[in-house]
Amino acid sequence: MHQSFNPTVRTLMGPGPSDVNPRILVAMSKPTIGHLDPEFIRLMDEIKAMLQATFQTKNELTIPVSAPGSAGMETCFVNLVEPGDKVIVCQNGVFGGRMADNVKRFGGEVVLVEDEWGRAVDPQKLEDALTQHPDTKIVAFVHAETSTGVQSNAAALCALARARDCLTIVDCVTSLGGTEVNLDAWGADAAYSGTQKCLSCAPGLSPISLSERAVSAIKNRTTPVASWFLDLNLVMGYWGEGQKRAYHHTAPVNALYGLHEALVILEQETLAVSWERHQRNHRALKAGLEAMGLSFIVPEDERLPQLNAVTIPEGVDEAQVRQQLLQQYNLEIGAGLGALAGKVWRIGLMGYASNPKNVLLCANALEAVLSQYNAPIHKGLATGAIERAYG
Amino acid sequence: MHQSFNPTVRTLMGPGPSDVNPRILVAMSKPTIGHLDPEFIRLMDEIKAMLQATFQTKNELTIPVSAPGSAGMETCFVNLVEPGDKVIVCQNGVFGGRMADNVKRFGGEVVLVEDEWGRAVDPQKLEDALTQHPDTKIVAFVHAETSTGVQSNAAALCALARARDCLTIVDCVTSLGGTEVNLDAWGADAAYSGTQKCLSCAPGLSPISLSERAVSAIKNRTTPVASWFLDLNLVMGYWGEGQKRAYHHTAPVNALYGLHEALVILEQETLAVSWERHQRNHRALKAGLEAMGLSFIVPEDERLPQLNAVTIPEGVDEAQVRQQLLQQYNLEIGAGLGALAGKVWRIGLMGYASNPKNVLLCANALEAVLSQYNAPIHKGLATGAIERAYG
Repeated sequence: MHQSFNPTVRTLMGPGPSDVNPRILVAMSKPTIGHLDPEFIRLMDEIKAMLQATFQTKNELTIPVSAPGSAGMETCFVNLVEPGDKVIVCQNGVFGGRMADNVKRFGGEVVLVEDEWGRAVDPQKLEDALTQHPDTKIVAFVHAETSTGVQSNAAALCALARARDCLTIVDCVTSLGGTEVNLDAWGADAAYSGTQKCLSCAPGLSPISLSERAVSAIKNRTTPVASWFLDLNLVMGYWGEGQKRAYHHTAPVNALYGLHEALVILEQETLAVSWERHQRNHRALKAGLEAMGLSFIVPEDERLPQLNAVTIPEGVDEAQVRQQLLQQYNLEIGAGLGALAGKVWRIGLMGYASNPKNVLLCANALEAVLSQYNAPIHKGLATGAIERAYG
Repeated sequence: MHQSFNPTVRTLMGPGPSDVNPRILVAMSKPTIGHLDPEFIRLMDEIKAMLQATFQTKNELTIPVSAPGSAGMETCFVNLVEPGDKVIVCQNGVFGGRMADNVKRFGGEVVLVEDEWGRAVDPQKLEDALTQHPDTKIVAFVHAETSTGVQSNAAALCALARARDCLTIVDCVTSLGGTEVNLDAWGADAAYSGTQKCLSCAPGLSPISLSERAVSAIKNRTTPVASWFLDLNLVMGYWGEGQKRAYHHTAPVNALYGLHEALVILEQETLAVSWERHQRNHRALKAGLEAMGLSFIVPEDERLPQLNAVTIPEGVDEAQVRQQLLQQYNLEIGAGLGALAGKVWRIGLMGYASNPKNVLLCANALEAVLSQYNAPIHKGLATGAIERAYG
């Protein structure tokens, strides 16, 4: 016979999921109501309004996809890419590669614009690719690369795409709520995110937003969308205005309770204060880790405050260190992915988890464990550096 | 400013979501851990084992898809259907139609075998279609039609398909946990379900199971799967054996806590006792409703105990009745779908919600509300009939 599951309480400072605010855990445990209940329809409307505020957009089609971030990505690609469409994908990490895979599966032709892992997308390279491929329909890039901790200049990249009348698809999985996302100011056409990063919600939902231009491109498709579940022509009917909702799938009711509460929490804090908090805690962690002699792989002006890619000291078995952190301190940090596997740790300071207690814990737990392995670090300096950084 | 959401406590006796067992609500509110945490990997293994027991199968590839039932359906079709494949779809309600839509989106050719809404799939019609279309690759049908409350003979339909060397895809969304599902005895190749019906879990996950024959068909595809998120070649790596799991998407951690608890509860009750409970409460509800003069549209031997399609008395505004039930008694029952819209109510007795208290409440709340509208029903007889039915 199996037993009920009682997870150990961890501190989640990896690339996501991040620590979930207890208010959100409570919200998810409220009694389930029907997905066609008038109260649930009101909940849907409030979620849409708060997501619009978070994405900083007036886009009517701003909703959570009923599945994790990868499904939000797929929703954007499967609806906007038609067979034969040329799509420029800017790749500077794992998730750009996944975008290219999406394009190919839906019959599109990929033009890859590559940048080094750990660097922002170079707008000049995109400009060159657009000149070389004037028949491009879509430009896709990752705003916040979760695999490297890099932030690209979304405003600049969207502007280049718009100047050539291309649609844009922007991955905001790790940025939304943690650093500024402003779809309307950028002129972005499609963006997707996840709930398990800076919204501090459980994983399982993917907020997306599509501009009128994108919606009109979907409505004018000449081929059917290669998905029933993610076909926005159908999903729009389910999430449409007022009481006239057409049954599509069954929404994940309790997960949406959680997202609603996450958005209420963010509204109470305000976006600006949340972004500043993420910056402040990042600077403190950086001070602590640098005092120990660790360094960041991303240049300072391209760094994401919520995802810190830190180089691993010489001679250290990085997996063993992560295991020790988990076993001794119940602290989770992330491994490197793809080209950076074995080269960096990824330390998240996302949403609820971006706080001084976690900064202090992480730096000192790392110091304690690295000392066990005789890693070449400076000891006893992290806490003071962190304290000074908070000022 | 938006406020935290506090749903009214409803009794969910529609076609799903059904009432969620409070143990499951508590489970979903436990602290989130990472999706690569060793404890989470143990949880995944236990969920797989308990799902195998519930589907009565040894299929290795038995996992929950990280999205609602419609995504489980799509997972089966997008992985098994290749462009040009001939697929026989048996349609006797809404969900067979959805299967046909899936087939077309993935480039397959649909042969539709139609039966009346409210009747089981006729094996003879399938036999005839198989004879007429010897090049059929896949046979798809719905075991338990949620839109009509009909149960088809899955064993017989699978046997016919196997005799012609066809793969089968079986919709078990509403049957799993409530009536017998026995994939190995049937010889079914792919089945999908949902968590929000007889498993009494919140909506958002879709348990699926695929036979070795199905897995080998997927591995031998000559065209790529038209989905990254649902590509089982990738998902299998994530849900694979032991600690060697390849990162794919981020699993909905807390929703999986809920499914785990649902499966523990079902294991404790045992499948046989659960099926018998669904039968017993169905018989009692039937006795109560028939005493009032209401009737069922499905012939007795094709009826699902967990989903009761009941005809609406003459001259009654069915939507108004449902609204009154919700407002006065916080009781949700379902409307008819598709061809049965406006003709039936769908009353669910699913999982945790299948209990004598709900039977008594539903029959008497219906009597009270129908009396307000002077509907031609017999009053004062339901409770006695229910009592006698429980014996």
